[in-house]
Amino acid sequence: MGECVYKKTVEKWGVFEVTVPGPAGRNPFFDYQLKGVFRGKNEEVEVDGFYDGDGLYKVRFMPSFAGDYSFKIYGNFIDKAFTGNFTVTPASGGNHGPVRVANTYHFAYEDGTPYYPIGTTCYAWTHQKPELQEKTLATLKKSVFNKIRFCIFPKHYIYNFNEPQTYPYEGTPCDSSKLTVENFMDPAVRQGNAWDFKRFNPRHFQLLEQRIEDLMTLGIEADLIVMHPYDRWGFSSMSPEEDDLYWKYVIARFAAYRNVWWSLANEYDLMEKKTLRDWERYAAILCAKDPYNHLRSIHNCISLYDFSRPWVTHCSIQRVDPYKSAELVSEWRERYKKPVVLDEICYEGNIEHGWGNISGQELVRRFWEATCRGGYATHGETFLHPEDILWWSHGGELHGESPERLRFLYRILRETPGHGLKQHSLSWDSVTGVPESPAHQGAHYLDYYGFYRPGFRRFYFDDTTKYQVEVVDTWNMTITDAGIHQGRFTIELPGREYMAIRIRKIE
Amino acid sequence: MGECVYKKTVEKWGVFEVTVPGPAGRNPFFDYQLKGVFRGKNEEVEVDGFYDGDGLYKVRFMPSFAGDYSFKIYGNFIDKAFTGNFTVTPASGGNHGPVRVANTYHFAYEDGTPYYPIGTTCYAWTHQKPELQEKTLATLKKSVFNKIRFCIFPKHYIYNFNEPQTYPYEGTPCDSSKLTVENFMDPAVRQGNAWDFKRFNPRHFQLLEQRIEDLMTLGIEADLIVMHPYDRWGFSSMSPEEDDLYWKYVIARFAAYRNVWWSLANEYDLMEKKTLRDWERYAAILCAKDPYNHLRSIHNCISLYDFSRPWVTHCSIQRVDPYKSAELVSEWRERYKKPVVLDEICYEGNIEHGWGNISGQELVRRFWEATCRGGYATHGETFLHPEDILWWSHGGELHGESPERLRFLYRILRETPGHGLKQHSLSWDSVTGVPESPAHQGAHYLDYYGFYRPGFRRFYFDDTTKYQVEVVDTWNMTITDAGIHQGRFTIELPGREYMAIRIRKIE
Repeated sequence: MGECVYKKTVEKWGVFEVTVPGPAGRNPFFDYQLKGVFRGKNEEVEVDGFYDGDGLYKVRFMPSFAGDYSFKIYGNFIDKAFTGNFTVTPASGGNHGPVRVANTYHFAYEDGTPYYPIGTTCYAWTHQKPELQEKTLATLKKSVFNKIRFCIFPKHYIYNFNEPQTYPYEGTPCDSSKLTVENFMDPAVRQGNAWDFKRFNPRHFQLLEQRIEDLMTLGIEADLIVMHPYDRWGFSSMSPEEDDLYWKYVIARFAAYRNVWWSLANEYDLMEKKTLRDWERYAAILCAKDPYNHLRSIHNCISLYDFSRPWVTHCSIQRVDPYKSAELVSEWRERYKKPVVLDEICYEGNIEHGWGNISGQELVRRFWEATCRGGYATHGETFLHPEDILWWSHGGELHGESPERLRFLYRILRETPGHGLKQHSLSWDSVTGVPESPAHQGAHYLDYYGFYRPGFRRFYFDDTTKYQVEVVDTWNMTITDAGIHQGRFTIELPGREYMAIRIRKIE
Repeated sequence: MGECVYKKTVEKWGVFEVTVPGPAGRNPFFDYQLKGVFRGKNEEVEVDGFYDGDGLYKVRFMPSFAGDYSFKIYGNFIDKAFTGNFTVTPASGGNHGPVRVANTYHFAYEDGTPYYPIGTTCYAWTHQKPELQEKTLATLKKSVFNKIRFCIFPKHYIYNFNEPQTYPYEGTPCDSSKLTVENFMDPAVRQGNAWDFKRFNPRHFQLLEQRIEDLMTLGIEADLIVMHPYDRWGFSSMSPEEDDLYWKYVIARFAAYRNVWWSLANEYDLMEKKTLRDWERYAAILCAKDPYNHLRSIHNCISLYDFSRPWVTHCSIQRVDPYKSAELVSEWRERYKKPVVLDEICYEGNIEHGWGNISGQELVRRFWEATCRGGYATHGETFLHPEDILWWSHGGELHGESPERLRFLYRILRETPGHGLKQHSLSWDSVTGVPESPAHQGAHYLDYYGFYRPGFRRFYFDDTTKYQVEVVDTWNMTITDAGIHQGRFTIELPGREYMAIRIRKIE
């Protein structure tokens, strides 16, 4: 047996990886296991390793402290444990650590920096041709998005019948040449798959983790969708034993990336073969095997999952009504006492489906409604395209009007004290967001009017405090000084939709 | 005692009026009563008369059949009944009779002509200066509106603190010179009223019935709001005896006008002094005293009245949610099995209140949503005005973008077979309206997309029927031929908001 390979230094919250040689025969994914124990002054972490092909096994670790560490790798094919030492250097510039829940309803990086999710969705971007993936990264780099939802398994759905670049298992896929929008849900078209669900294709995962790293470099969280129902290959209907093998492999490979979030599934309730017991079992594996406690949730189609389950760190919600979406944030916050992220509230676009044809105005309105109620929303884009390249599925380029406005919203969020907002009050035509934190009460008000168009607004807080008032046009992205006010005052508005007033106490 | 005065002919559904002399002393409104019995070949109707001032009493009757009639007037001040004969001629051109419920959820004039309400709201227009009233009538004449809601009692509310032209009672009003938007709800500002609630001011009612007649001439239904809470004079807190006297006077005066609808109240639930028992008592008086069974309803602020009460002919609803309004029509139809008229769903405008600052687009969308679900909506307009003349309260001129689009909707309704639509189906981004009548099933579909923007739509009804398809832009008011189709077909749409597709079977 050869030597193990690793680098002598890694930065805090970076990926420390030890590669060890091992057997390539039998089924290395199933018959051989290895573990690593990583020890520093402040932590001792045990993680599973995984087989990466070509007779190489890997163990990954994300250190949470700077300083000297040692490690020990052992397994059922290892006679004498591999050991070594390495140094964890302080986190560099843009590295703030993994994102955690902060102040019950919000998020912050582990170093305390507030994190305001402005997410987007490209379900199958890592399964597209490399050029398109590069284009997606270039688009993301220019964008405000700091979270992206995407699938580990390839996706079979309208606008996306193409073969993925790689498959997660050894084997051969069913014939996709006769797929149409009419027959794609027909079980007949799914005949002919031949997969070994106990033998992973490491290439599929290597490519994916390269993208997780790329996103990490861009400061973008990877909201990994581990399971989903958009399937013609049988990945959504494996046996419990196969599912568990998959979950452990995924965790062993990806958990050490600080920007990973676990989305147990997209539209879990459409996965007919899975029961609540299955979802709870996956969650238990995740809690047992991910030592870093990355954020965990599960996304619905119709029925919300019981987000009060202790393993759920935040709500990942798909809107449940064609007219009210973000308006329900307050209710969900109250019910679950966790951050509310609306991971699907219809996409800006013009495809034939209601979930993918709202205007940029309406999407941005939903973001603002969510934000002022102390929640968060997620973007997606579905414009008809001559080559069927839709951002929501494939990535590529953005065509809509909302992304620029979401950048503006992000600016507003960053100018809000504390970690985020909560709903202070509600009237027929406005929602008022104030900082969540008690320390900032009375200091900052964001009054948002949505599609209502008041021509003016009257305010009164008290007789003595002075307030700096600004009129915010959330669509045209302007902030207009409306002066310093005290006592009873009236602020004029242009009578357009999508306006807000920001009022800040002058200390 | 003198002679009675009347015309020898009246048209069917016209107002036949007999004037009789009587005592002007004591309290003619309270101490003297008279009744009329009107007899033709097909009907015998008994109605109350009323004192109209100057020693003159009147009895009014609306004949429902052409032919010869006789009448007899008697009362506690009349020694020998007045009698006479008159001829009812056929209804002339635009006179289709009173509006009735048709086909459970819709309306038709008594002669069977469909009536599609496109209502508007000018609560206090008859209390404004005569020039402004004339301007309102001129505006209405050019408009599509065929129903208008307005109050018998004067209105005290923001933007409307001015004195009415006349008061309904003898007496003097409280001082209004110190009213402001801050104090107008304060009981203190209502001190100083001195009214005799047993002595009406006939002039107030004469002026109002002139306007009812003007509306009749224009073919517009007068949705009379008999009681309301916007009051500084005490008209909303009279005693039961005074209330009943008022109700009987109102019915005696106005019931013979074919275009009258009875709205027992606006925002009945804001009238603190009235109980459900009161409302039911007024309704009982109305049912007993109005022999023509004009349409009857009662309008809520928050809590819907129990529209299943047998005296209620149709639902007169104020939206109960800032985001969903017309979307609830289907539910209300199901619950009440009566026509659903959304008499307040926010007004096009830009005032400071949420009920009065939505866009023309949003108001027209609400109309279409209501229409395709088999209901109806009512317009109102509240734009800030240098002289505080707001259509919703004062009438005057229209400034918004919705009225033209409502004319277009009215055209679409008139081109729909039968008496109106019902919801055929619902998807996330569309509501499909079809004719209510079973006779027209499968012949006509109106697919409305609201703020959703599908770029195309696929249809399939059957293999053999041919359909004429049109793309309807409800905002730009265009109808574009999309060809004749059969079997499976796809209709392209421009990817804009507020589009519809109309599909009509080719017979």
